[in-house]
Amino acid sequence: MTERISSVDTCDVRFPTSRHRDGSDAMNPFPDYSAAYVVLRTTAGAEGHGLVFTVGRGTEIEVAAMRSLAGMVVGLPVEELLADPGALARRMIGDSQIRWLGPEKGVVHMAAGGLVNAVWDLAARRRGKPLWQLLAELTPEQIVAQVDFRYLRDALTEDEALALLRSVSAGRAERERLLLAEGYPAYTTTPGWLGYDDEKLDRLCREAVQDGYDLIKLKVGGNLADDVRRMRIARQAVGPQTRIAVDANQIWGVPDAIAWMRELSEFDPYWIEEPTSPDDVLGHAAVRQALAPIKVATGEHVHNAVMFKQLLQAGAVDVVQIDACRVGGVNENLAILLLAAKFGVPVCPHAGGVGLCELVQHLAMFDFVAVSGTSADRAIEYVDHLHEHFADPVRIRAGRYLAPTAPGMSAQIVDASLAAFRFPDGPEWAAVTAAAAAG
Amino acid sequence: MTERISSVDTCDVRFPTSRHRDGSDAMNPFPDYSAAYVVLRTTAGAEGHGLVFTVGRGTEIEVAAMRSLAGMVVGLPVEELLADPGALARRMIGDSQIRWLGPEKGVVHMAAGGLVNAVWDLAARRRGKPLWQLLAELTPEQIVAQVDFRYLRDALTEDEALALLRSVSAGRAERERLLLAEGYPAYTTTPGWLGYDDEKLDRLCREAVQDGYDLIKLKVGGNLADDVRRMRIARQAVGPQTRIAVDANQIWGVPDAIAWMRELSEFDPYWIEEPTSPDDVLGHAAVRQALAPIKVATGEHVHNAVMFKQLLQAGAVDVVQIDACRVGGVNENLAILLLAAKFGVPVCPHAGGVGLCELVQHLAMFDFVAVSGTSADRAIEYVDHLHEHFADPVRIRAGRYLAPTAPGMSAQIVDASLAAFRFPDGPEWAAVTAAAAAG
Repeated sequence: MTERISSVDTCDVRFPTSRHRDGSDAMNPFPDYSAAYVVLRTTAGAEGHGLVFTVGRGTEIEVAAMRSLAGMVVGLPVEELLADPGALARRMIGDSQIRWLGPEKGVVHMAAGGLVNAVWDLAARRRGKPLWQLLAELTPEQIVAQVDFRYLRDALTEDEALALLRSVSAGRAERERLLLAEGYPAYTTTPGWLGYDDEKLDRLCREAVQDGYDLIKLKVGGNLADDVRRMRIARQAVGPQTRIAVDANQIWGVPDAIAWMRELSEFDPYWIEEPTSPDDVLGHAAVRQALAPIKVATGEHVHNAVMFKQLLQAGAVDVVQIDACRVGGVNENLAILLLAAKFGVPVCPHAGGVGLCELVQHLAMFDFVAVSGTSADRAIEYVDHLHEHFADPVRIRAGRYLAPTAPGMSAQIVDASLAAFRFPDGPEWAAVTAAAAAG
Repeated sequence: MTERISSVDTCDVRFPTSRHRDGSDAMNPFPDYSAAYVVLRTTAGAEGHGLVFTVGRGTEIEVAAMRSLAGMVVGLPVEELLADPGALARRMIGDSQIRWLGPEKGVVHMAAGGLVNAVWDLAARRRGKPLWQLLAELTPEQIVAQVDFRYLRDALTEDEALALLRSVSAGRAERERLLLAEGYPAYTTTPGWLGYDDEKLDRLCREAVQDGYDLIKLKVGGNLADDVRRMRIARQAVGPQTRIAVDANQIWGVPDAIAWMRELSEFDPYWIEEPTSPDDVLGHAAVRQALAPIKVATGEHVHNAVMFKQLLQAGAVDVVQIDACRVGGVNENLAILLLAAKFGVPVCPHAGGVGLCELVQHLAMFDFVAVSGTSADRAIEYVDHLHEHFADPVRIRAGRYLAPTAPGMSAQIVDASLAAFRFPDGPEWAAVTAAAAAG
């Protein structure tokens, strides 16, 4: 009997991170790191796990969107699905009625991405390989066939993508060996949350250098005097060699971004991340032109490949920050990696949150082995929160991600954590919810 | 006792338009025009109605988003709310947790817009005026205070907006008189749906001219030979004087758009609408440059004011097509009207669907009276579907919208229609749903 997808189970899981202001920035003062979590199950008992990272309220909307899309997945024959996840991605993202709610953006697009990622997790488990390795073993033709080029051809054609992939094919085996031996560069945001006091900032900056990081990141944009003081503390703590990136999380308009960053330039910031609205391609280009040589980085809220295409076409970014859970899953991230490689712009993935490190490491490592062919000027963000909830948590040594070796996309949250933090009825929330209801 | 918002009631209402292929285009072969409908009720028994237009599947996600946001509205004191709807708009759109699901785009943004529109409907009912008139009586300072300029100041500052509004203040009374006497120009999309056969296309084109329209619109992008034949039929039917706009509904990439439209240029198309992804500012600019003097129009899927700002900055559009239900409600559309006026680009609103004509006429008429001060080169789209379900349906005479005079934003669907078409349990759907369940 043909193996089919028998169920798509979803879960709203939230971690009360706001209690300690972990993850606090200029636009997210009190995030509760959360996930719309999904498990595909097959008639033969196999599983594929996926998630959409969220920050608390609204996770129920993301779960509702996943449940609406689940009808397009249940019943699919598994072998056919795994042979071409791109076909499902195109069908879900292109659904002629649901696309009105995007198109290719926001709640419905992220839900499709979560499901697509779960399919890739299932595919990698089935093949007994970590996802990065599964992807790195695809031929250039197979990779290109997984990408929807409809809106990209003015910047990148199928033929150009093929040529690009073939140009680095020869070194794949050597880079895979290097990756397994040495891992992939990381940078850390652990010291820099806005809600931390000066003593904690200083201590965490020094620890980051001791832990082997040569790039750290600070949140900015709350108050200029505070930012100047915090940048001074951080620069003194890490010394002149360690790079300090700063992240405004979209708090500014274009003129404010330029003016504020000029006040911080004496501390030699490496990049300014999300200086303004993630939709503002031309605004990022203006900020970049005004602030060079400070680099401009964005991506965690850039909602699809068409937006990344324009950021690259307009010369608006020095650093492309892909996110595993923002766009339409692995397939759209393949497109973005190819676009970045075409334009010669390094990819430094956004991570942190819940599971973002676990998922996105596979894409960066695949990029190293099979797309850009280099890790120069590249690093995956690392934040040391919430990894204990994952079945295959990331492993960091001396400022580097070790390559995962377990089969899948590392997306699985352990059952005990799902049970404890399920919202609103898990024991970690039930008391809070009951108290709120009692008023 | 202070009057407060006592409830936010939502409804998933769908009309089975796909049965006759009304509304069919290159990307929407079988739409079921639908709405996520909302009613605010106050402790004193007043009501404000709003809706988010959708095209069938996924309406339940939009309703879920509205229900999640409703908690930010229930309990608010009504007078305070109505004195400054922009404060609620900013709070909902800027919610530090929910904005992760946008920001300012897609399901959550449209849900906020639906609620904001319902607040304005309540405000206009309370004042006993149609919304266009309520808005037109605000001072320039009051209008500017309703707009969030955070991400717009590189293109339009508060001072520039004030100067612009003041520059047309003197003529307000005369334009209001003209509007009430003569209405506002309309154009019709009724003849041009892709699913209609040649005979119906020809007949509806001739009827449009007889009905007084000097601009009609055809859907294109399904098949080039069909488009050439249909454009020929339409041009012959309407003669050389009536303008024919065409609409590709995002079917093309940039190079395809240019190539395809060159094949249709012999029929003198007035504008090409949605030639490619609505996110592709630079792509629209390239299409416009290649195809001039054919105009480029877009907007029904342009998800916020930051995107409109860039379309204007990049010289990417000749026609700004605001939509009443895509962005964050009346307040964000005020921003877009101001941006368009600053750049001197005419606004021709998108309408049709369910209730879009009813809602957006208020914004175009306000624009005429108080922002751009002109109706030259402007027209509101008109489609003659589904108006019978509205308590205050649009009135069209000789190719013009008559100015509504009933209090509110004309958003109210009559109770009988809500009951009949409620999805999935209304009688118009229950039989279909039961049959589908039975398999």
